[in-house]
Amino acid sequence: MKTPYYAVIFTSSLEKNIDGYAEMSEKMVELASQQDGFLGMDSARSEIGITVSYWKDLASIQQWRQNTEHLVAQKLGRKQWYKKFSVKIALVEREYDFEK
Amino acid sequence: MKTPYYAVIFTSSLEKNIDGYAEMSEKMVELASQQDGFLGMDSARSEIGITVSYWKDLASIQQWRQNTEHLVAQKLGRKQWYKKFSVKIALVEREYDFEK
Repeated sequence: MKTPYYAVIFTSSLEKNIDGYAEMSEKMVELASQQDGFLGMDSARSEIGITVSYWKDLASIQQWRQNTEHLVAQKLGRKQWYKKFSVKIALVEREYDFEK
Repeated sequence: MKTPYYAVIFTSSLEKNIDGYAEMSEKMVELASQQDGFLGMDSARSEIGITVSYWKDLASIQQWRQNTEHLVAQKLGRKQWYKKFSVKIALVEREYDFEK
């Protein structure tokens, strides 16, 4: 992607009981990808989960954080699914891609 | 961590044959963590791998990129283990942590 743009680095540890998490997670990925300024997303989970979403600017991140359905998901996340998490908002200054 | 600091977001897809990758990966984690300006690292792998390492400044990232043993690992990585990868260098401006 063409720099500069923003990355939201979300790292998390889940609780043992994560009923409903997969469905909500899938729904939020779909919803996020429809937002203005959304550029893409990478996600992986093993011991911890890391999701990095990419955004055009801070305003589009702010809008997504305040999206009504997303606010409901965030509340449930803190209450039920996440043992801990961290959100880091970062300006991507350079990018280098390799493909065989 | 106290902002601002830098994040290196490394996303990758591996080849089928990854002989020697786990050992090299472990060695590089250990080596990186000994570098000046290294602040921490998060890593997860499922379909793709995401490793985010955190650094004090651009100079410490540059030094790590040019570390002799790391250069050997990078060369092997491109030749043998990675189908593709992306390196993004990003300035972390804000951070929010949650823990139950």
